[in-house]
Amino acid sequence: MAAKGRKILVAVDESEESTYALSWCLKNLVSDNQQNYKDTLILLFAKTHPLIYPVVDTTGYATSPSIIAIMEKYANELAEKVMADATQICKDFNDQITVETMVEHGDPRDVICDVAERFKVDFLVVGSHGYGIIKRAFLGSVSSHCAQNVKCPVLIVKKPNSDNADH
Amino acid sequence: MAAKGRKILVAVDESEESTYALSWCLKNLVSDNQQNYKDTLILLFAKTHPLIYPVVDTTGYATSPSIIAIMEKYANELAEKVMADATQICKDFNDQITVETMVEHGDPRDVICDVAERFKVDFLVVGSHGYGIIKRAFLGSVSSHCAQNVKCPVLIVKKPNSDNADH
Repeated sequence: MAAKGRKILVAVDESEESTYALSWCLKNLVSDNQQNYKDTLILLFAKTHPLIYPVVDTTGYATSPSIIAIMEKYANELAEKVMADATQICKDFNDQITVETMVEHGDPRDVICDVAERFKVDFLVVGSHGYGIIKRAFLGSVSSHCAQNVKCPVLIVKKPNSDNADH
Repeated sequence: MAAKGRKILVAVDESEESTYALSWCLKNLVSDNQQNYKDTLILLFAKTHPLIYPVVDTTGYATSPSIIAIMEKYANELAEKVMADATQICKDFNDQITVETMVEHGDPRDVICDVAERFKVDFLVVGSHGYGIIKRAFLGSVSSHCAQNVKCPVLIVKKPNSDNADH
């Protein structure tokens, strides 16, 4: 692998788990040796459509277009911020690594599996919890879904608790 | 990580998936650069107690001690053979890598999680299917269990089908 470099897909989102997974990958897999500088990191953010979350007001009216516009704006800003932060983490680690960023629309579970197949990545890195409790209840576990459905190897990185921070 | 080397736990068994996972790990993560020669690979085989599988003959009698002895002998021979093969794969790849072998008794799911914690490994590598269909029905998915329960990062390696052998 070293001759051509690996193509590593890292699923990123706004969670601490995602940031930890990216940092862990850089530190433990890309490391600080010359050969791994040939690696390409593809940072992927899945922009969930706002209406994937149920939005019901107390009157039972459907979500108004203005609310949807606000949510869409929020999703765009979130995607930009997540990508900027993730790219910075890579640059801070080493500015010789090739970093590509991708923002795709859809359920993260489908988006991640789809991109992994389409780009024939060598492996996928995903944090163990890409969502907060509420979103997870609606969307299920992204890491479990990917582990079951993606054909390439999947590395699931769990953010350690403070009481076992040596991991 | 490069300075001290990583401690990588690889769960091995008699399956092709396990052999593939080990080979993939060597080729893609340990690679052929000097710094990774400081890595330690811990090859772990979980020797399941024979009675974890239901053994019922047509008369309904309990399994006889002689049958248990035969199964125990088989399990020991299997452990030796799996370890010999796995060690050889590592040596063939590069004989400078430190390889440790461990054979533990118990349900592979518990054994793998326990060893990962006890030895504070940097990450765990496991094939996506450590069992044949029948055993899997009784024991469940080892990789899913480990991904959910082990604190360290878990890399699940799926053996590609012949129709997508480029993965």
